[in-house]
Amino acid sequence: MKAKIADLVRPDLVDLKPYKVEDIPHRIKADANENPFDMPEQVRKLIADECLRHQFNRYPDPAALDLRGALAAELNLDVDQLAIGNGSDELINYIMAAFGGHGSRVIFSNPTFSIYGIFAKVWGTEVLDVPLSPDFQLDPDGIISAAKAGDRSIIFICYPNNPTGNCFSRQAILDVIEHSGAVVVLDEAYHEFAGKTFLPLLGNYENLIILRTFSKAFGLAGLRVGYMMAGGDIIREIMKVKMVYNINSLSQKIALILLKHKNEVFPYVEKIMQERDRLAGQLDSMKGITPFPSDANFILFRPSTDAEAVFSELVKNGILIRNLNKPGLLQNCLRVTVGKPEENDEFLGILRGLHE
Amino acid sequence: MKAKIADLVRPDLVDLKPYKVEDIPHRIKADANENPFDMPEQVRKLIADECLRHQFNRYPDPAALDLRGALAAELNLDVDQLAIGNGSDELINYIMAAFGGHGSRVIFSNPTFSIYGIFAKVWGTEVLDVPLSPDFQLDPDGIISAAKAGDRSIIFICYPNNPTGNCFSRQAILDVIEHSGAVVVLDEAYHEFAGKTFLPLLGNYENLIILRTFSKAFGLAGLRVGYMMAGGDIIREIMKVKMVYNINSLSQKIALILLKHKNEVFPYVEKIMQERDRLAGQLDSMKGITPFPSDANFILFRPSTDAEAVFSELVKNGILIRNLNKPGLLQNCLRVTVGKPEENDEFLGILRGLHE
Repeated sequence: MKAKIADLVRPDLVDLKPYKVEDIPHRIKADANENPFDMPEQVRKLIADECLRHQFNRYPDPAALDLRGALAAELNLDVDQLAIGNGSDELINYIMAAFGGHGSRVIFSNPTFSIYGIFAKVWGTEVLDVPLSPDFQLDPDGIISAAKAGDRSIIFICYPNNPTGNCFSRQAILDVIEHSGAVVVLDEAYHEFAGKTFLPLLGNYENLIILRTFSKAFGLAGLRVGYMMAGGDIIREIMKVKMVYNINSLSQKIALILLKHKNEVFPYVEKIMQERDRLAGQLDSMKGITPFPSDANFILFRPSTDAEAVFSELVKNGILIRNLNKPGLLQNCLRVTVGKPEENDEFLGILRGLHE
Repeated sequence: MKAKIADLVRPDLVDLKPYKVEDIPHRIKADANENPFDMPEQVRKLIADECLRHQFNRYPDPAALDLRGALAAELNLDVDQLAIGNGSDELINYIMAAFGGHGSRVIFSNPTFSIYGIFAKVWGTEVLDVPLSPDFQLDPDGIISAAKAGDRSIIFICYPNNPTGNCFSRQAILDVIEHSGAVVVLDEAYHEFAGKTFLPLLGNYENLIILRTFSKAFGLAGLRVGYMMAGGDIIREIMKVKMVYNINSLSQKIALILLKHKNEVFPYVEKIMQERDRLAGQLDSMKGITPFPSDANFILFRPSTDAEAVFSELVKNGILIRNLNKPGLLQNCLRVTVGKPEENDEFLGILRGLHE
């Protein structure tokens, strides 16, 4: 009896395409909303020291208690209100595992971070996207109706939103949390660049989950550390589906070191915000370029000329940004991650050459 | 409208209990089948050097091409036949995601590694366990009938088997691969201690998956690196459900360093095998102790006195082993991980005190 792989695959996956990471040669990487500043030298040395004494041969602490304890102290939460993921990606996956699946629906705005939709499909969850308004605002009524039409729903709201860069209206989000009857996930991956958060309201809503990450402001994308804040009832369900040893022991230690040395890391965040505002101002001053307001470490913009040609010209000059051009709200749109000052200057120089 | 979390949880999870890691104080840790020898000093220094130049701020290579390339060369495989996981645990999860779910069944022997059953339940997959014979051998006919009774099945075979320690009959496993019509997963987590593998047969069976890990022989449990070997059709489905950035960049680099320095790591594996055989011999010579033959880095044994009392006495002396006592084949059984010579001596000394 010969098994045919195609017949053994979960039917949910037949039409699923894997998330594709562009592999285009470049000198300047401005496509993935990473922090352009690598680890400060003194923090790097502490990490190397940790490696000289680290217990590599033992399984990591499955509860990540030291890291959760430090985050709890930092954020004024209980340890029970926190879960750690191998990047926020893994926490998004666990949210689907705990609250998604057949018979439930995942709802998000369009456009937003594409991973919500991909993981929903992996879990066999119905996906509904509700368009943003032309000025990139949330449609709370559309989202609430979509949630109420199903038995169980998960709503993802990215705040500030990727790829548009803006923070949605606070009242619209509160409406969704209060009236949808769904698990509402606020993905605050970029919150340090916005200075806005729903965290003080966490205790008011048992259906609220807030996600954050060490990948952006902390500049730790390589090590995959995200965290989730929610009420104890939600965290308990997440713990049921969590892989025991999901966070490696070195990433736990390094995230702890970074938390302790926040003051050495955060001047970079200030710098990125200054550069973002400078970049936005410069783009705005160029004829034929419309940048959209950003509370994050990236800027969405629309050239009046062909976005594909602008993208290609940047690639030809070794600068990789994200080409988001597709019919709808993102028609002819590109997204650039805020880089180091000299990287931003190079990027601006090429755009200027094309638009003057 | 107030959402009740209990009403929003996936029905599959209602009865699920999370995997529990015992948190018992101890001096000697012999409960988790870890390698007792930590990283050789010269390899540790190379890791610290890597940290001094590592790009922490950039996302890891989603395809883990360097590591897969090195493994492919080492194992004489194509890169397309390999996938890397955040520990084998994650790969087991992805196998469920790709081939499990509602309408499929997960089949394994009883007893075996408990994670197969837990993840199957997380994915809403029916679980069937087929008892081993009293001498811990596989029941291929029982497994094949269980698989044929369903539409789609995944069969997990741990080789050598955890917690019994033995390698099942080769012919029994071949029967299952050839006649079950299922995806057959051979978990070779402990294969370096057994010297037995089905890898040379990988190309013969498109339904065969082999799992291995850096956690045991390579002593890298803390960093969570497992790998999967299978035909291209299976790997393609796994890539659809894999989180993009599942393996952090530092773990990728460190696994590469360990592969390159295999010759410095593997003398420890030899040492562990020698100690296993010494430990088994000593246990066998004790009146009232029956050790079972092991091809792994742990030994299952049955005291003729109360196993619970033996376990407690060991804990009282700072030695943590695994208490597996429950009705059935594991009645009154304990499992000890092979430690350093002096750790094994301490363990033997306490057992001797109880049994002489």
